[in-house]
Amino acid sequence: MATRRLAIIGGDAAGMSAASAARRRDPDLEVVAFERGPYTSYSACGIPYYVGGLVEEADSLISRSPEEHRANGIDVRTRSEVVAIDLGARRLTVRSAAGEQSEEPFDQLVVATGAAAVRPPFPGAEAIEPAQTVDAAERLRAALERGGRTGDSAVVVGAGYIGLEMAEAFVDRGMRVTMIEMAPQVMATLDSDMAAHVQDAAEGRGVRVVLGAGVEEIVLDEGGAPVAVRTAGETFEADHVVLGVGSEPVVGLAEDAGLEIGESGALRVDDHQRCPGQDGVFAAGDCAESHHRVLDRPVNIQLGTHANKQGRIAGVNATGGDERFPGVIGTAVSKICRYEVGRTGISEREANDARIEIVTATIKDRTRAGYYPGAGPIWVKLVAAPDSGRLLGGQIVGTEGAAKRIDVLATAVWSGLAVQELALLDLSYAPPFSGVYDPLLIAARAVAKLL
Amino acid sequence: MATRRLAIIGGDAAGMSAASAARRRDPDLEVVAFERGPYTSYSACGIPYYVGGLVEEADSLISRSPEEHRANGIDVRTRSEVVAIDLGARRLTVRSAAGEQSEEPFDQLVVATGAAAVRPPFPGAEAIEPAQTVDAAERLRAALERGGRTGDSAVVVGAGYIGLEMAEAFVDRGMRVTMIEMAPQVMATLDSDMAAHVQDAAEGRGVRVVLGAGVEEIVLDEGGAPVAVRTAGETFEADHVVLGVGSEPVVGLAEDAGLEIGESGALRVDDHQRCPGQDGVFAAGDCAESHHRVLDRPVNIQLGTHANKQGRIAGVNATGGDERFPGVIGTAVSKICRYEVGRTGISEREANDARIEIVTATIKDRTRAGYYPGAGPIWVKLVAAPDSGRLLGGQIVGTEGAAKRIDVLATAVWSGLAVQELALLDLSYAPPFSGVYDPLLIAARAVAKLL
Repeated sequence: MATRRLAIIGGDAAGMSAASAARRRDPDLEVVAFERGPYTSYSACGIPYYVGGLVEEADSLISRSPEEHRANGIDVRTRSEVVAIDLGARRLTVRSAAGEQSEEPFDQLVVATGAAAVRPPFPGAEAIEPAQTVDAAERLRAALERGGRTGDSAVVVGAGYIGLEMAEAFVDRGMRVTMIEMAPQVMATLDSDMAAHVQDAAEGRGVRVVLGAGVEEIVLDEGGAPVAVRTAGETFEADHVVLGVGSEPVVGLAEDAGLEIGESGALRVDDHQRCPGQDGVFAAGDCAESHHRVLDRPVNIQLGTHANKQGRIAGVNATGGDERFPGVIGTAVSKICRYEVGRTGISEREANDARIEIVTATIKDRTRAGYYPGAGPIWVKLVAAPDSGRLLGGQIVGTEGAAKRIDVLATAVWSGLAVQELALLDLSYAPPFSGVYDPLLIAARAVAKLL
Repeated sequence: MATRRLAIIGGDAAGMSAASAARRRDPDLEVVAFERGPYTSYSACGIPYYVGGLVEEADSLISRSPEEHRANGIDVRTRSEVVAIDLGARRLTVRSAAGEQSEEPFDQLVVATGAAAVRPPFPGAEAIEPAQTVDAAERLRAALERGGRTGDSAVVVGAGYIGLEMAEAFVDRGMRVTMIEMAPQVMATLDSDMAAHVQDAAEGRGVRVVLGAGVEEIVLDEGGAPVAVRTAGETFEADHVVLGVGSEPVVGLAEDAGLEIGESGALRVDDHQRCPGQDGVFAAGDCAESHHRVLDRPVNIQLGTHANKQGRIAGVNATGGDERFPGVIGTAVSKICRYEVGRTGISEREANDARIEIVTATIKDRTRAGYYPGAGPIWVKLVAAPDSGRLLGGQIVGTEGAAKRIDVLATAVWSGLAVQELALLDLSYAPPFSGVYDPLLIAARAVAKLL
């Protein structure tokens, strides 16, 4: 009997998690992974810290190199772009960096093509390379170190968490930073009242935040380098421009091959990461949908944490296993200047959009006992069902020690805990970590009182 | 109709929470609180930080003074010790600091007499005042500041969390510190493998830790001041001695009055903080039992977090309300030198003692993404039921950001989550806060693999 072959498209978190899981489970299987770029298994989340200089070496963002994967028995082909999938013939068409095409057979397939930065429609945007991959980040940092003197100006278009992290990275380099956002608030994953604190943190660090402003053009010099960003109201000089206007799942290749696209725009999968109706074909990571347990519908949330889990599950199930991905609840955390920011479940806005009835309350407290050094502000906003009191979501903004508390709320949302019960839960207390009532207990009680 | 009167014995967390809740709910009720000492509502947990000098003023440990309570309409009587309770006649006998006795009637009663330091049986122990109240802490600090020069020696007897915090406080003052513990490990609330890391942290700070050593005598000079601590094997010079050998509920007064003592040695209460068979009599805080939800039996856990909640519930129920205290699961957190330490649910030892079958696993990871500055070690130990995988307990030791994760495990234990589900839970990820798999997910998976 010929050796069976598992092919993987995409060599980042989801793809290499699938490869590694399959490799561990089935030593006789041939596992081959095709990656368009030069790197595997890197931390896209770490890129702003590398750009800002907090992380010195790009290499440290790479959790496992192609060589390391090869040493584990995975046939990694970097600079190898899959340009066509033939599901009937079980064959991929792969193009090398040199432009040569080859045909690669497979028995099982994992599609892990990730996400790509959205290209905004305004003129000049094409001149800006998205800093989404390690090699692009290296080019950006090199450009900053060449040209980037203290006092240089940077414009960040888009005030999502990546835009905010990049703005902070530029400030760390001593640059004057303007952030331009079309929406009336920063960080659209938060409700506007909570986002206002994040904006305070960015402004407190010296970032000029311009909201409700659509970019009309990135003005380029004769050499094609950016010199300014123009909105309807104002033109902002810019020695450097970064675009952080979101990213979308890369699904064209899979769609051409006949795989189903779901309502979120990403590849449809079942809870085993299987592409429906396609035996032995899986999708995982940023290119795939996940079931949102609170909204009870498929969503596309591009995060390394989901990519790793889904990839592993795809690898297990591609090798005869039976593991289920239980879905997501929209948990996320980031560090923006002096504040930590977390969110889970649904926000007030998401509830309104989905016509879900809620009650909500926001409290302000301190991260530590008031007398303990280093205590700072923390805001907690909770969203709950008005009938049962079931916790549906939470948002946290505050100083050191604030954000990882979001995992407590995530566990409560996941478990279907009601705010009345959360208010009396046996959470830990010691002066370096909270007041005697943890801010989460205080917030839960504030919501419970509204029921 | 005469005004009804609620009397409270004890003016700290539980007592004043009861008083405040009752006051808010029933403006016509007369609320009187008798407190033996000069202070109300202080943070006993903050005392080591005051002794060490991290907190400058003793006043900052007081969350609400007698005057503030009085301004809220609570009749606080400090330096007033209740010496007898007559439940039949609904009357307290109260002795003032001047030695005068008076009779005080009540309709409802809340017993919140707290806990007191255990007096060890060896000679010389009577010369050491426990640093358990704000005024005692003031005397200790004054003594340290008078005599406590850099290089002075201190011996801490007992290596529980208070002993460890006091040892650190002395190190902060530049003293040479020896800690003597009868048990073979520090911090008996942890399993010995996890406690070993805490010992490392204390030793890393310069504390000499002597385990398995029973103190036989505190050697006093002619003036009655300690000069050394003697064990069977060694005599340790000591300019200052602190006892941290645990505390026990203060129940003598209530027992004499006929209130029931439970199997834990504390006052028996139902889930409404009512003393069984005694209409209108409640107990709350360190002197009362709590239901342990995992062990399914009453326990006495002396913590401000329970005292506040139970006190409030007693105050609500004493004024016609109907609130239930849902029990405890043994959650606790502390900061010991470079490590943060958390625990919840049951430990491996507690499971063995209670003959509960378990599986357990311990993992070591990093508090942040490996490349992010400030990443440090974190150990997570989980205890689960072997059949269902239900999480029964967890312990965490690690550097900054480690310990408050215990609340995630507390929420999971409380909700009856299984480790298989915990391993795939949507916890937050960003490089400043964890690797892409949070240490809790890694630990849950390690246990799940054993099922």
